[in-house]
Amino acid sequence: MPILLESSMVQPGKFITFEGIDGAGKSTHLAWLTKFLQNRGLTVVVTREPGGTVLGERLRELLLDQRQTMHAETETLLMFAARREHLDKVILPALARGDWVVSDRYMDASFAYQGAGRGVPLRKLALLEEWVQGIFSPDLTLYFDLPAEIGKARVQSIKTADRFEVESDQFFEHVRRGYLQRAQQFQQRISVIDASLPIEQVKQNLMELIEAFYRQHGGQ
Amino acid sequence: MPILLESSMVQPGKFITFEGIDGAGKSTHLAWLTKFLQNRGLTVVVTREPGGTVLGERLRELLLDQRQTMHAETETLLMFAARREHLDKVILPALARGDWVVSDRYMDASFAYQGAGRGVPLRKLALLEEWVQGIFSPDLTLYFDLPAEIGKARVQSIKTADRFEVESDQFFEHVRRGYLQRAQQFQQRISVIDASLPIEQVKQNLMELIEAFYRQHGGQ
Repeated sequence: MPILLESSMVQPGKFITFEGIDGAGKSTHLAWLTKFLQNRGLTVVVTREPGGTVLGERLRELLLDQRQTMHAETETLLMFAARREHLDKVILPALARGDWVVSDRYMDASFAYQGAGRGVPLRKLALLEEWVQGIFSPDLTLYFDLPAEIGKARVQSIKTADRFEVESDQFFEHVRRGYLQRAQQFQQRISVIDASLPIEQVKQNLMELIEAFYRQHGGQ
Repeated sequence: MPILLESSMVQPGKFITFEGIDGAGKSTHLAWLTKFLQNRGLTVVVTREPGGTVLGERLRELLLDQRQTMHAETETLLMFAARREHLDKVILPALARGDWVVSDRYMDASFAYQGAGRGVPLRKLALLEEWVQGIFSPDLTLYFDLPAEIGKARVQSIKTADRFEVESDQFFEHVRRGYLQRAQQFQQRISVIDASLPIEQVKQNLMELIEAFYRQHGGQ
């Protein structure tokens, strides 16, 4: 049994997660952050949830498949199964090697989507959180905050909707409130970025946050 | 959120689970039990784990696929995800209708295979057990006990091995000990049947158990 507590205590790399509803511009900003870190000579592992491993991507297919109905708690357990594998095969080994890991969504997404969105009790999510990651946690989480209707409008113009994207504006407002509540609860770890601003302004705000984090943790 | 506690308290049907390693003759005896109950005018839902639902069968494919490696805790979470769906879509609705449900493996299998077999702490399994089923539980569990080497010999002569069947005799001895420990812990619910006896003798023992259970719960 790998001991997560130990892994997290000796990890030389840093773990940064991006959170937010679709349409918040995560992909663009994640690409920028990756380049920023690479320019400083760091090896960056870019990954995502659900997914990140061969098994995780197979589960992602199930989870996003619009034809696949499932109970909200089933969805939750599948998300955590994919996450457990993600930690074991990708995140923890990369951090142990000294790489920086940047993930498009991680734990907070379960509290926002399955918790606030689908109504799975936060107490039940907290049990799984501890079950899966122990005291391990991201070093920094960037939450890109956006009103649901703006996110939805941006996404609809790009691609066809998956099993989550077909949900109502009200669902995504719940998700948003779930994220904000989580950010309130973990103010040290989670930075809220206003993603409704013009993209250059968002990038500027992100850059300041990242540079401060990098100075503090990465180097000079 | 469906409340499992309530479902279990009002259920008019009965839930019987079959447990044991492959080769213990579960399929044969399960077919016999089904006929026994049908002969008494009961509607019997025959199901299995992992599986039992469309999603569950897709997960079963992943779980049994020999080419698919996964962490023991990932395997555990996938089993419980399939089980949550199984409860929601098949087991609880059938019991609520008054049907009898007979499942080829259920909760105890996780304690035997993932717990005793793969080393996932029993404490972590107990947390998921409560997470997924609350105080709901099978009404009767029949554990077909068999030394690992006999089970393996019987299975090898029938079909090619899946991701579990390729495990060593030692693994299946651990699984067996896990089952026996569970039977010790839940003596009221779990009956141990010696599956190494000649099949007619096993059937005789099973018949006595079932008739006693039926007299007690089902009717005259």
